[in-house]
Amino acid sequence: MRMDVLTLFPEMFEGVFNSSILGKAKEKQLIELNTVNFREFSNNKHNTVDDYPYGGGGGMVLQAEPIFGAVESLLEPDAPRPRVILMCPQGETFTQAKAEELAKEEHLIFICGHYEGYDERIREHLVTDELSVGDYVLTGGELPAMVIIDSVARLLPGVLGNETSAVTDSFSTGLLEYPHYTRPAEFRGWKVPDILLSGHHAKVEEWRKQQSLRRTVARRPDLLERVELNKKEKKWLQDILNEQP
Amino acid sequence: MRMDVLTLFPEMFEGVFNSSILGKAKEKQLIELNTVNFREFSNNKHNTVDDYPYGGGGGMVLQAEPIFGAVESLLEPDAPRPRVILMCPQGETFTQAKAEELAKEEHLIFICGHYEGYDERIREHLVTDELSVGDYVLTGGELPAMVIIDSVARLLPGVLGNETSAVTDSFSTGLLEYPHYTRPAEFRGWKVPDILLSGHHAKVEEWRKQQSLRRTVARRPDLLERVELNKKEKKWLQDILNEQP
Repeated sequence: MRMDVLTLFPEMFEGVFNSSILGKAKEKQLIELNTVNFREFSNNKHNTVDDYPYGGGGGMVLQAEPIFGAVESLLEPDAPRPRVILMCPQGETFTQAKAEELAKEEHLIFICGHYEGYDERIREHLVTDELSVGDYVLTGGELPAMVIIDSVARLLPGVLGNETSAVTDSFSTGLLEYPHYTRPAEFRGWKVPDILLSGHHAKVEEWRKQQSLRRTVARRPDLLERVELNKKEKKWLQDILNEQP
Repeated sequence: MRMDVLTLFPEMFEGVFNSSILGKAKEKQLIELNTVNFREFSNNKHNTVDDYPYGGGGGMVLQAEPIFGAVESLLEPDAPRPRVILMCPQGETFTQAKAEELAKEEHLIFICGHYEGYDERIREHLVTDELSVGDYVLTGGELPAMVIIDSVARLLPGVLGNETSAVTDSFSTGLLEYPHYTRPAEFRGWKVPDILLSGHHAKVEEWRKQQSLRRTVARRPDLLERVELNKKEKKWLQDILNEQP
């Protein structure tokens, strides 16, 4: 898969695109990641890409022309039209389901504004998706684009090694994860629960399931509505709920 | 404010910490941003920081010792205890209200795991907050830490210049932003709405308010419950709602 990012700050992406799992996926040619500085598509000698808003008011607005020009420079003649994603606080909230949907595409283009507004014609005539990563305000679309690229890339075949894909993800069982412990068995007087040192596999599994239930009740009770439990697990859940003050 | 990040991938942060608004805030000494590779606090000659989970199962677990050691190396003897924030998909969902709360602190420490689990004793005895930036799975806590740092830093006095702080943020009026347009007045046959070129200030304001209402109805009707509208605005809202199919 190919992912291109339009940004005025391409240097922000270097560390993220070249480290860890994304860096390895690039090396293995599983993904192609590019940044495009859309200032290069400015239509004036001062290389500006924003201008005052029609109708007055504070702030600057990104012009349509450099964004259209930059996106069009990335299109390949016979390829299907890529998804063009506007990073935008007013967009649809990004979720794991959206990551799975985007992971099926061949080519994604991300447009990152940086505290300016976007000329509405970009939204109306160029963009296929508007996405937000959460209800908080950031200085630009660059970090949200990195978040989406990371979450999509890790779903592509071969990107996560076996050792990592084997890890139980939060949410994959429908419950939050149980507590993990590793060596030492005692650290500053705080001990690992005896049951985990017992070697009694079935009891360990039982304890973990109960802990997952307990944590989900405490932190994300909304998840319990969608989870499928067997008879024994339902009983544990009822016991935990009965303990609640 | 000082913000420290514990990570095995400090190079991921370089571009983000040294560009744009965060870079300028560092230069102006409004914020201090550091990364700490907690591998330096490993207690063994192989420099490992994770180990197999007690009780068996896949995946690796980050050990308590290097994380405690790294956090404690950052504490100053007479300073108040900093907030120690674990980046964690099971954490509380980060919001703008949380950003405002964290912006009041003097010192924040972020702990970023990278697909491993955390030894539970870190959570129980070291951490003050567990935060998640959204309901999606990422390869590590690094990008979420950058998101939180960016959203907190921009709230600190002096970090945003006047030109940027003047921009109307999404959500600040309680409604989504109206559409913006800038030059040219016609781009590829797509024209700026006549009203914005009319020079009639009061009518422009009216149009913008109506557009904000229209967009909020279409995309985030949940926001309408909390917004205060005058009599005229309530009438517009009713008209827009009556148009809905």
